Amino acid sequence: MNIAKQIRKDFSMQPYIYEKEVRIPYYLGDRYSRTNLSDLMNLLIEVSGEQTHHLLTKDAEEMGLRWIIIQYDLKIHKMPAVNETVIIRTFSEEYNRLFSYRKFEVYDQADTLLVEVTSVFSLINEERKLTRIPKEVVEGFNAPEKRRIRRMPKPDIPKDIQETTPEEYKVRYFDIDTNFHVNNSAYFDWMLDALEDEFLSTHELTAGNIIFEKEVRIGEKVNSHVVLENKEEDQYISHHQIQVEGIVKCVADFEWKKMK
Amino acid sequence: MNIAKQIRKDFSMQPYIYEKEVRIPYYLGDRYSRTNLSDLMNLLIEVSGEQTHHLLTKDAEEMGLRWIIIQYDLKIHKMPAVNETVIIRTFSEEYNRLFSYRKFEVYDQADTLLVEVTSVFSLINEERKLTRIPKEVVEGFNAPEKRRIRRMPKPDIPKDIQETTPEEYKVRYFDIDTNFHVNNSAYFDWMLDALEDEFLSTHELTAGNIIFEKEVRIGEKVNSHVVLENKEEDQYISHHQIQVEGIVKCVADFEWKKMK
Repeated sequence: MNIAKQIRKDFSMQPYIYEKEVRIPYYLGDRYSRTNLSDLMNLLIEVSGEQTHHLLTKDAEEMGLRWIIIQYDLKIHKMPAVNETVIIRTFSEEYNRLFSYRKFEVYDQADTLLVEVTSVFSLINEERKLTRIPKEVVEGFNAPEKRRIRRMPKPDIPKDIQETTPEEYKVRYFDIDTNFHVNNSAYFDWMLDALEDEFLSTHELTAGNIIFEKEVRIGEKVNSHVVLENKEEDQYISHHQIQVEGIVKCVADFEWKKMK
Repeated sequence: MNIAKQIRKDFSMQPYIYEKEVRIPYYLGDRYSRTNLSDLMNLLIEVSGEQTHHLLTKDAEEMGLRWIIIQYDLKIHKMPAVNETVIIRTFSEEYNRLFSYRKFEVYDQADTLLVEVTSVFSLINEERKLTRIPKEVVEGFNAPEKRRIRRMPKPDIPKDIQETTPEEYKVRYFDIDTNFHVNNSAYFDWMLDALEDEFLSTHELTAGNIIFEKEVRIGEKVNSHVVLENKEEDQYISHHQIQVEGIVKCVADFEWKKMK
């Protein structure tokens, strides 16, 4: 992956923007050379980690805290292709006592916006409990502090999703990350793979909204439920629920259009 | 990933060497921040693809041919860590009428050799049949042509491996690559994941030898058989066989030592 990194610093209360040029390697793509959603999200999180590393004087980990991702809200105008060089831009939009909102934008070489992601982060302490965000770990991003907790759109999950026959996945050794829980990217694969191969091969993702409710751990067996709804001609919404022994771990919906 | 690419050209019959500096992103690692073997192999193949792209006047694909990987022979002195910047070096060692032998070496910043891989490539035509390697697609690498087919070490598979209870894996949508068959990296995950989580957490890979015998395709169910052999104190060999409906698709053995 090629890099041209750049940190723009404004000394007004504008969030610092971090940019990175990334050539997407072939192994992050599907059979049609479209970047896999799970891998795209990994690329974005890697770039936000770099900004954090560059900007911050005080690291959350030094305080015994860890950032976790609670939600993603995605708009996909065009999924990047493998071997394409894209620009990933990220900045912290705002934070409140419990949540930090980070924006990601992916542009092509002609500066066309391909993907927009709003992500919601929060901090957990050593007992893995949600904890108040200390000013020291976020002030480096130069994002405004807000009193009010932002209202984010929520996935719409039909009640009868419980009655569908789920695809089953066993948590694999390589799904576990340095937090000793399943990496967020695995959920995308479990959810999308539960759709038919034929559907995935003929449709493009245009949007998504995913909420990570509870952690999935080593050794657990995952049930991936899906309901596919035909909205209008060639447009679909897929509704998803990830459960472990009847406990909901993650919900999402994704919007699709037929590939041309 | 940071890049400092460099092509050294000798005008003697020395193979051209291609080097790339790569910072390993966090999402290619396991819970202990060791690079996943499947992801390491993807990184190497990406780098060899770049050399091919830089050097060759005649591309195999223009002739209706595709490179496939038949075998890897690995020595792992130390598995790179995530966030580590390594140098990946690759060159074509030699070729004969059916096989091309490519070497990969991974070095750390102090120029210590971490990983060595010998890989065996061959070409398939549009009917997916092995085909004679045309001079035009390999001469760009400047590797010597040999008459004799090299004798490579073979994994040692115990006969009673058939009687073990396999772990089962369903081919997932995202396992399929642009060749419309399962990407080689998926086999590593199926094979290694079939070992116990406890074993993988406490042991380090030191070597491996894997032969890809037949393709695995969309929709197939994979049985991953493993026999773990204790060689001497704290040293193990794991023997692996991947089958689909009783047909052997892939065999391998891996050597392990206890983590300190």
